[in-house]
Amino acid sequence: MPVYKMSDYQIAPDKTRDQTRKLQKFLNGLSSKKDCILQFEPGEYHFYPDYASERVLYISDHHEDVPKRCIFLLEGFENLLVDGNGAQFLFHMDCIPVYITKCRQVTVTNLSIDYAESGYSEGIIEKAAPKEMIVRIDREKYPFRIEKQTLYFREGRGERMLEAWMEFDAHTRAPLKQGKEFLVDQSRDAAKIACEMLDDDSISIFRTDGGSFLKNSQPGNILVMRHHPRSHPAFYVTDSDGVCLEQVQCHKTTGIAFLAEWTKNILLENFDVCRLEDGPVFTAAADAAHFVHCGGRLEIGNCLFENQLHHAVNIHGIYAKIVDVPDSRTLLVKLQNEMQKGIRMAHEGEEMAVVQTSDLSETARGTVVSCQFLNSDYQEIVFAEELPPVWIGDVVENVSCVPEVRIHDCVFRNNRGKGLLLNGKGTTVVERNLFETPGAAILLAGDAKRWFESGDAEEVRICKNRFERCGYVADWGKGVIQSSPCFQEGETGFYHKKVYISENFFAGNGMPVLWMEHVGKVEFWENEMDEEGDASVVLKDVGAFESDRMGD
Amino acid sequence: MPVYKMSDYQIAPDKTRDQTRKLQKFLNGLSSKKDCILQFEPGEYHFYPDYASERVLYISDHHEDVPKRCIFLLEGFENLLVDGNGAQFLFHMDCIPVYITKCRQVTVTNLSIDYAESGYSEGIIEKAAPKEMIVRIDREKYPFRIEKQTLYFREGRGERMLEAWMEFDAHTRAPLKQGKEFLVDQSRDAAKIACEMLDDDSISIFRTDGGSFLKNSQPGNILVMRHHPRSHPAFYVTDSDGVCLEQVQCHKTTGIAFLAEWTKNILLENFDVCRLEDGPVFTAAADAAHFVHCGGRLEIGNCLFENQLHHAVNIHGIYAKIVDVPDSRTLLVKLQNEMQKGIRMAHEGEEMAVVQTSDLSETARGTVVSCQFLNSDYQEIVFAEELPPVWIGDVVENVSCVPEVRIHDCVFRNNRGKGLLLNGKGTTVVERNLFETPGAAILLAGDAKRWFESGDAEEVRICKNRFERCGYVADWGKGVIQSSPCFQEGETGFYHKKVYISENFFAGNGMPVLWMEHVGKVEFWENEMDEEGDASVVLKDVGAFESDRMGD
Repeated sequence: MPVYKMSDYQIAPDKTRDQTRKLQKFLNGLSSKKDCILQFEPGEYHFYPDYASERVLYISDHHEDVPKRCIFLLEGFENLLVDGNGAQFLFHMDCIPVYITKCRQVTVTNLSIDYAESGYSEGIIEKAAPKEMIVRIDREKYPFRIEKQTLYFREGRGERMLEAWMEFDAHTRAPLKQGKEFLVDQSRDAAKIACEMLDDDSISIFRTDGGSFLKNSQPGNILVMRHHPRSHPAFYVTDSDGVCLEQVQCHKTTGIAFLAEWTKNILLENFDVCRLEDGPVFTAAADAAHFVHCGGRLEIGNCLFENQLHHAVNIHGIYAKIVDVPDSRTLLVKLQNEMQKGIRMAHEGEEMAVVQTSDLSETARGTVVSCQFLNSDYQEIVFAEELPPVWIGDVVENVSCVPEVRIHDCVFRNNRGKGLLLNGKGTTVVERNLFETPGAAILLAGDAKRWFESGDAEEVRICKNRFERCGYVADWGKGVIQSSPCFQEGETGFYHKKVYISENFFAGNGMPVLWMEHVGKVEFWENEMDEEGDASVVLKDVGAFESDRMGD
Repeated sequence: MPVYKMSDYQIAPDKTRDQTRKLQKFLNGLSSKKDCILQFEPGEYHFYPDYASERVLYISDHHEDVPKRCIFLLEGFENLLVDGNGAQFLFHMDCIPVYITKCRQVTVTNLSIDYAESGYSEGIIEKAAPKEMIVRIDREKYPFRIEKQTLYFREGRGERMLEAWMEFDAHTRAPLKQGKEFLVDQSRDAAKIACEMLDDDSISIFRTDGGSFLKNSQPGNILVMRHHPRSHPAFYVTDSDGVCLEQVQCHKTTGIAFLAEWTKNILLENFDVCRLEDGPVFTAAADAAHFVHCGGRLEIGNCLFENQLHHAVNIHGIYAKIVDVPDSRTLLVKLQNEMQKGIRMAHEGEEMAVVQTSDLSETARGTVVSCQFLNSDYQEIVFAEELPPVWIGDVVENVSCVPEVRIHDCVFRNNRGKGLLLNGKGTTVVERNLFETPGAAILLAGDAKRWFESGDAEEVRICKNRFERCGYVADWGKGVIQSSPCFQEGETGFYHKKVYISENFFAGNGMPVLWMEHVGKVEFWENEMDEEGDASVVLKDVGAFESDRMGD
């Protein structure tokens, strides 16, 4: 395989100069996209968006479907190895560091990714009273101003308003107990506040809507203040087969750290989404790893996902709503979740199921002849066979995306939200991981009402994990291991087929160990529970429960 | 030619139902895009954006380069006639009503275009004091709320802040004398204001920055309040040859009424951008007609352009800045004006000139082999021949876009800004029009400093027009007929070659009749001046001035 030394193309460590244009030239100049090895020298590289390629991308679970600058735009490669040799890649906002599309067998290894600027800002709480907080903000790091009682942070040549914050404990660097995200001013259910300058670095923040700040807010704690949209994943992978990140660290991002759509066979091995000791308390602005319409083998091993501002892992398909039935072979469907707009529902030859929204049960199935976008909201799907009568308002799901998932030997901690959201339709194995998540550690969801994330699991095996001090934020779950597909009130049925839980250790958790709804069979064997923490089990509409637990 | 009656496709007048999807189906189902006549029945049609096609468009002179919904997406047609038979087309925000691209010979005739909603809002002034205004806003028409002293208007499911306003005279429906747009809060040079509710329909607005409101502001006058971006032209034409609008009226828009890029041979005949008697005081949110990189014959005849929120007509090319010279045949250029991003600079085989920014003189010329986008900012242009040494910081211009322009028998009045901005590189004829424009009636510009709009005119002939009460807003011009290409201080040279002005009538104008800078030759014959108004002539760096005026 031809080895390209990046230094031969003047792409070399440099703390000041931009490497983007040289990289683009190198990539555009490659005579073949087959069997390439790209070797970087160790050191610090800077990549600016100015000369980067621009692509219009409808990125799942991100805001703003607009043209985005992509630095490593890896398109159409077959057998590509990007070896950083321990290099640090520093990206400047706004850009997507790595976009892999229409590739086969791409490995990225031995490098770290971070942004030179921070999309969010931080402050230290100096006073925490029910109606007033005093917060110190390092103006050098996070330039800000107040106008009309509103806090603005500088971003590039512009500025953006404070939209939300989350408080992290000064010592544990974990989200505060009860500490769900605090929304500010922007939306109807957000708190109303007024900001005032106290001195050059300190501001006073008052509740103006009669409400109170968090009771357990503490001086010294860290406020992560959000003002940037969830705009750019660090790694974005689409329409590929065989993608591997190995020995890669990702620190701050303005979106999901690793996001894959319509990709088969993905390995994340020693891929850490983690803090730097002298960096901010947050890492990715959203999930650490997120998979939409992915298939084949998805493996996450020996990874550390910490302090990201949303879940650790989310694997799911999409329910799209049927809005019209032009004829018995054709459905017009609409994507419902604003952050799913523009995501393809199917390709020719794939199978789709029609699912009724009340109990998420399948009512029909067909083979796709074509799936055409009207626009980012609507797709018209034509089937090979006539469908039985279909109800407008029900949903469709792609049932050809059936990943086999294995998540092992990882640490998941201190993020906003939950641990693993597992809606892979095949078999999912979760073993030997350590969970310290403020919300549910593992959630088997599925809903056609709010998030429209689909996928009934065939079997989920949860073995030999440690769940320690999970579930202390009540808003973020009902059980450490939770199944709660969203059925209409009173409806029954088994959405997930089987959940097998064995040889795990549970300690100091703030939620029931199990919260199981609408599961065909739950097995619970040889799990160990310490004395502290909630050890209860909640079963609702479970077909069978087998356990060696006394009293169950 | 095959005639398609739209009613055969269930596209018929209907005051409530959306026609967009049926229209899309009809257009997608056409077996041939050659020689088609589309006939509508008279009546009111509604078109919503929901089912419309979506295109990512970098639209010149508009904000937001994002995917846009296009209702009449006319692509690749040859000999197409769209005959409205007097129909009224009402579009719902946000969408582009008509997008014509890669077409030859398209005519749109006998219809009117309006939006069901208004992108901007209106209020009536009740009190006009130096520091306080009281404004009444019809809450039914223009839903609004105030929070933190800031005025928000509802737009669809969201809301936007007040950004700027302009005051129109209650009786003349023209912008107020001295009445340039009043920018609010958003930018550094904007006025700072605070808003308060007085009663359900009236608000009080205070200056909080020590400044005063307009001296000649009057109770009863109308405030047009801007809160929507300049987002969607009503007619958008690109990469076409032969486009005609005839007997078409356009009322409110959220952008330019007619915008063409890279199109040859355009006829606007009886195309009115005009108010409805019971409608708001404004029409298009930007120019009435705008042409970028257009060639061939451009004709505007028997049109009424009134009350739009920017100029009547603007015809220009683009100066792009040279930022790198990779080799002697290659230039890397960057588009400078934020609203020109993504506009192509050249095609293979066209000629480009290198122009020095100090005096806009040509220093080199070459034939384009290729012009490739790096992204919406940068293009790399390769030439057939070696260029002489080129300075970084100078600009390039496409010199193959040479339109022959004729503008005749039109009325231009009561808009924000100027009348005709004429930077066609060929011959431009302006005759038998009536100008009542608050700024300069005719401007020959050209600058590589702020707007980067290019085009030195070969000859401009201005004959038999009436210029009445023009130029009463000092910010919007220096002369009724003005040439002022932007040279560096102290530089001399003739940018526009010849301006011939004859048999015009000037009355009651607030600016010199002529303000001529950097013109090779000015002729001024048989023009009539009434007693009122400024009849002076200012000449600076004019090669020759010939006139029958006494004293000149």
